[in-house]
Amino acid sequence: MAVENLAHKPARDVSAVIDHLIAATAPGMEAVNRLILSRSDSPVDMVPEIANHLIDAGGKRLRPMLTLASSSLFGDADGNDVRFAAAVEFMHNATLLHDDVVDESDMRRGRPAARTIWGNQASVLVGDFLLGQAFLMMVESGDLGALGVLSRAAAIIAEGEVYQLAKAGDLDTTAEDYEKIIHAKTATLFEAATEVGAMAGGASAASRAALATYGRELGMAFQLVDDVLDYGGAGGALGKNTGDDLREGKMTLPIILALRDSSPAERDIIRSALGNPASGAAELAGITAILTRHDTLRRTMAKAEAHAEAARAALLAVPASPGRDILFDVPEFCTARAY
Amino acid sequence: MAVENLAHKPARDVSAVIDHLIAATAPGMEAVNRLILSRSDSPVDMVPEIANHLIDAGGKRLRPMLTLASSSLFGDADGNDVRFAAAVEFMHNATLLHDDVVDESDMRRGRPAARTIWGNQASVLVGDFLLGQAFLMMVESGDLGALGVLSRAAAIIAEGEVYQLAKAGDLDTTAEDYEKIIHAKTATLFEAATEVGAMAGGASAASRAALATYGRELGMAFQLVDDVLDYGGAGGALGKNTGDDLREGKMTLPIILALRDSSPAERDIIRSALGNPASGAAELAGITAILTRHDTLRRTMAKAEAHAEAARAALLAVPASPGRDILFDVPEFCTARAY
Repeated sequence: MAVENLAHKPARDVSAVIDHLIAATAPGMEAVNRLILSRSDSPVDMVPEIANHLIDAGGKRLRPMLTLASSSLFGDADGNDVRFAAAVEFMHNATLLHDDVVDESDMRRGRPAARTIWGNQASVLVGDFLLGQAFLMMVESGDLGALGVLSRAAAIIAEGEVYQLAKAGDLDTTAEDYEKIIHAKTATLFEAATEVGAMAGGASAASRAALATYGRELGMAFQLVDDVLDYGGAGGALGKNTGDDLREGKMTLPIILALRDSSPAERDIIRSALGNPASGAAELAGITAILTRHDTLRRTMAKAEAHAEAARAALLAVPASPGRDILFDVPEFCTARAY
Repeated sequence: MAVENLAHKPARDVSAVIDHLIAATAPGMEAVNRLILSRSDSPVDMVPEIANHLIDAGGKRLRPMLTLASSSLFGDADGNDVRFAAAVEFMHNATLLHDDVVDESDMRRGRPAARTIWGNQASVLVGDFLLGQAFLMMVESGDLGALGVLSRAAAIIAEGEVYQLAKAGDLDTTAEDYEKIIHAKTATLFEAATEVGAMAGGASAASRAALATYGRELGMAFQLVDDVLDYGGAGGALGKNTGDDLREGKMTLPIILALRDSSPAERDIIRSALGNPASGAAELAGITAILTRHDTLRRTMAKAEAHAEAARAALLAVPASPGRDILFDVPEFCTARAY
């Protein structure tokens, strides 16, 4: 394994990185989007209304792109790459609908959350509908192995979310607890996305395992970065989308590391702001000052960088190809968001 | 088809009817219960706590018993009858957890609903966990056909619940709308329960279709009876568990039929009570008087009896056996609850 391949690349235009992934998966993503649209249709108006509200808002669709790109490294997927990619995106959207209810979020992807327009009730039920449709698409693939990967992922994701809920506001949450939570709630779906992609393309067992590790490590990096962004990124630059985790009492790594090193006075400040829906700009600034003092945003980013590195390293187990180069750059896109 | 076989049996001890089903499926149900217990376990304490709260409360476990009994009509299921039965019960319990959140119910099976103890958030997530585990058990069966039946059912059930939500309090809801709703939200899982049972036992295509029809018709009868019971049963005898549908604004057949025939004054009474969380004993008595005046509880029961009859008729397509006799009596158990 050549050391130079593992070196972290110098700063450059990261949007170009993701542009390569977008361009490489564009034809497949067109088919995925068509499938998503047709499978979120229903004679019950509220179903496509809610599904399309979420789907139209877009987001990056990183997970289905990863499924397609992973599949293309190996061989002709005969449409299963598209089915799996759409199923992964449906599972992700079902999770988002339920998360918004759980977190009592008002906004999602810069628009009002479905639950603020149609209510918690419809959000729960349309999430269930999307989950059912995801499994149906998997069944149509005829691939029991891939079905196993995704159904196991569905259970693990829900389990991780329950664990996160149980730990909300618990100041004794450890870095190990946090790792378990983000592994389950985020990394598992990234792992499933790349693993079923590899399976669709007919990868060998070793290559399939490599892609699974790549997805899992990328997912860990992705969530660590997200949790840093919620406190304004590595530089602690506060903006309109920061502070949600603080108000929801989410025990993320920047807070956990700070609590470990904090003075009793700092601990009191954190305790009173954490899980307090009234925590506003002033409280957030106070907390961010503590995080900065203990350098925990940068320390969390160092963890993210290590997972990004591990993702790249995993890819070296599959033969070199232009497709592999594209996947190789994705971790950097994830981590660069924080700077 | 012998007409005498289709005749509705005279009144007799209906608890004996279900006792036969319970006795016939007892060994299998022991295995189902063990599987349910092991698959609702998790290192995240709240998961088994909530799952077991619901599972311990019991209920009749009618659906998994139907799966086992359907399978036993045909042949050795090699454990798949047990897997499918547990998966069906997990799907049912996931639906109950989500329904309680959607309906804002405080009680379930005579105990506080999980959401009143652990909150809506955990109820949504543990429901998702159970759904994931249900699919995983199905995957382990290796039967893609049965997986298709159950994943399609999951999507249809959710769709039906959304439709019911959309129609809540809508006085223009028709009997056809109502039929679509109960077909989707209730009959679909009964149909899936008996159909995958038949598949586990290796039924022919014709027998599989017969068992699917049997389950569907039984499920229709079951829900019609439930909706009559919510207004005190065929006799309109009000008790502590009545009036939920009225307060939630659910447009069930007794109300729909009454609205069709009601005077403007009666319509106003229904309008003001329906979907009003404050509707108490007085309002319920007023509504039940209207339902009785238009005979809609008995007319709804006539529909239920017709579906029960159709369920029995469907069974005649499979060879006679002691197991068939047991299933033949189950529709009567469902309808007799209302008298």
